[in-house]
Amino acid sequence: MDYLSEFLAVPLTSAAVLEAEAGDMKRRMEVFIMKIQKQFCHALEEFESEKKFVVDRWERPEGGGGISCVLQNGEVIEKGGVNISVVHGVLPKEAAAQMRSRGKVLGTGQLNFFACGISSVIHPRNPHVPTIHFNYRYFEVVEGNGGAKQAWFGGGTDLTPYYLDENDCRHFHQSLRDATGPEAYTKYKKWCDDYFVVTHRGERRGVGGIFFDDLEEPSLDEAFGFVQRCANAVIPSYVPLVEKNKDRLYEPAQREWQLLRRGRYVEFNLLYDRGTKFGLFTPGARFESILMSLPLYAKWEYCHQPEEGSAEAELMAILRTPREWLIV
Amino acid sequence: MDYLSEFLAVPLTSAAVLEAEAGDMKRRMEVFIMKIQKQFCHALEEFESEKKFVVDRWERPEGGGGISCVLQNGEVIEKGGVNISVVHGVLPKEAAAQMRSRGKVLGTGQLNFFACGISSVIHPRNPHVPTIHFNYRYFEVVEGNGGAKQAWFGGGTDLTPYYLDENDCRHFHQSLRDATGPEAYTKYKKWCDDYFVVTHRGERRGVGGIFFDDLEEPSLDEAFGFVQRCANAVIPSYVPLVEKNKDRLYEPAQREWQLLRRGRYVEFNLLYDRGTKFGLFTPGARFESILMSLPLYAKWEYCHQPEEGSAEAELMAILRTPREWLIV
Repeated sequence: MDYLSEFLAVPLTSAAVLEAEAGDMKRRMEVFIMKIQKQFCHALEEFESEKKFVVDRWERPEGGGGISCVLQNGEVIEKGGVNISVVHGVLPKEAAAQMRSRGKVLGTGQLNFFACGISSVIHPRNPHVPTIHFNYRYFEVVEGNGGAKQAWFGGGTDLTPYYLDENDCRHFHQSLRDATGPEAYTKYKKWCDDYFVVTHRGERRGVGGIFFDDLEEPSLDEAFGFVQRCANAVIPSYVPLVEKNKDRLYEPAQREWQLLRRGRYVEFNLLYDRGTKFGLFTPGARFESILMSLPLYAKWEYCHQPEEGSAEAELMAILRTPREWLIV
Repeated sequence: MDYLSEFLAVPLTSAAVLEAEAGDMKRRMEVFIMKIQKQFCHALEEFESEKKFVVDRWERPEGGGGISCVLQNGEVIEKGGVNISVVHGVLPKEAAAQMRSRGKVLGTGQLNFFACGISSVIHPRNPHVPTIHFNYRYFEVVEGNGGAKQAWFGGGTDLTPYYLDENDCRHFHQSLRDATGPEAYTKYKKWCDDYFVVTHRGERRGVGGIFFDDLEEPSLDEAFGFVQRCANAVIPSYVPLVEKNKDRLYEPAQREWQLLRRGRYVEFNLLYDRGTKFGLFTPGARFESILMSLPLYAKWEYCHQPEEGSAEAELMAILRTPREWLIV
């Protein structure tokens, strides 16, 4: 396999290991997320006449590393990141406690872990283009040396518009349901609405999408198939919304509203997001990759209230009471 | 006492109670912080030809309330807040745990609390004018109904410049040492350097000041005297720095640097600050008052590095390795 025709950088795991263990889920997932990274970056670069994603490959002294792709100050993309990480080591106690609180049964001795995933946030410049976030990850925990192994997938895709376009929301949710099937969609749409909450404000971060964790059923192979369908749905769910809205006109006041909503995005990510906090509080974390999710600019006004009946107020109503976007 | 000549709003505690219990520390502190709030707001309004602090008096269904004063989009002050809160009720379990972790011995039954304090953050427009934060508070915890009472003060004042002016730093620290005396200054200066750390970046939020908690020695009366001296030092420590720098010229790139540093301020406040998190995670909290500390605008660039030898790099060196500003 010619790496540079398939991927944006040399994978974290050596070619020899990727080849020798090609059937191992760890390796299958790493190769898969590398492909998704390249496809998504390339799809977005189509909108830029000059800027490309800058590719940073980094290694972690404690084991593994990552490939961070960031595009800043583009014509269409104000700031976007598409990151991969492949890490392994001893599971921090806090992470084990977090897993137990979700119902995982883990031994009390040393726990080793492997985790790989892709994580992306795209903040476009035009307030009529929503922000997208997605993350798909694979996790293994092994008790002691070569003891019992648990493995699962997690992830999701969600949309944060600044102005509501109901057709865009329906298109986005429909693409996700096409990928997941209706039953999983219903379950994971609710999970998403329940997770992305800016609790102190009583509002959601955006119009949702799907979110799930601890997926290992009916088999790890089938769970991987599900995750592949979800991740492959990112481009068709999102890129048409960029294409459709990127050249729309907007007023300075609409830009200010976008910046205020980006302030809420920052609040969610720094105060509530499990991944961000787990990442930042892990010693040796590459904080620049974790914080690439933050927008280029954000704004906080004291007691800002959108005018009654305005487009801004219309969005707020949806963020306070999530809607079903698709006819069941 | 004519309230509106002394204060910016009617105090949270009724006139009858303030008068009848005028010797009680709860009432003394409330009256004191009301005066500080008015003095500081008025001192800053001197810099504005039109804007005044907007005064919001709010009550908390669970007991008590606050007075929030906010000035946004001024000529000199881009966003500033000076808040008072006077609250009481049942101490949340997490707050009790936090106090125990600091060494407080508290019973395991119901704990009632009273807390009042003043908290302020001023973000000026000009990057040559530092941001100031101060907070002085009084806390009582009473076991059960009328059981053993513990009472203490906490607080501090700290400075966050965007460009380093060593004379300004020395003036600020000297004003604090004049208020605290050299021994307390040395101890609380270090506490401040240790507290205001953006841990994941290995840098401090600013050039420090003083920070302390659990102050009840040598007597509560004397501790109150100390807190009064500290709070009275806010205006002489800070207002001359605004006066001196507010009309300095700056380049757009210096404004961008200020916004990046404001992003770090947001990171500290949302990820690490005890007061912010305690506030936001308390049910019924008035989040608008807590989050008035966030700047009007902030910025995040991926992997931003100031140029070697630049004024920005000079500031970063100090933020990585705090300095002694005063000759001992």
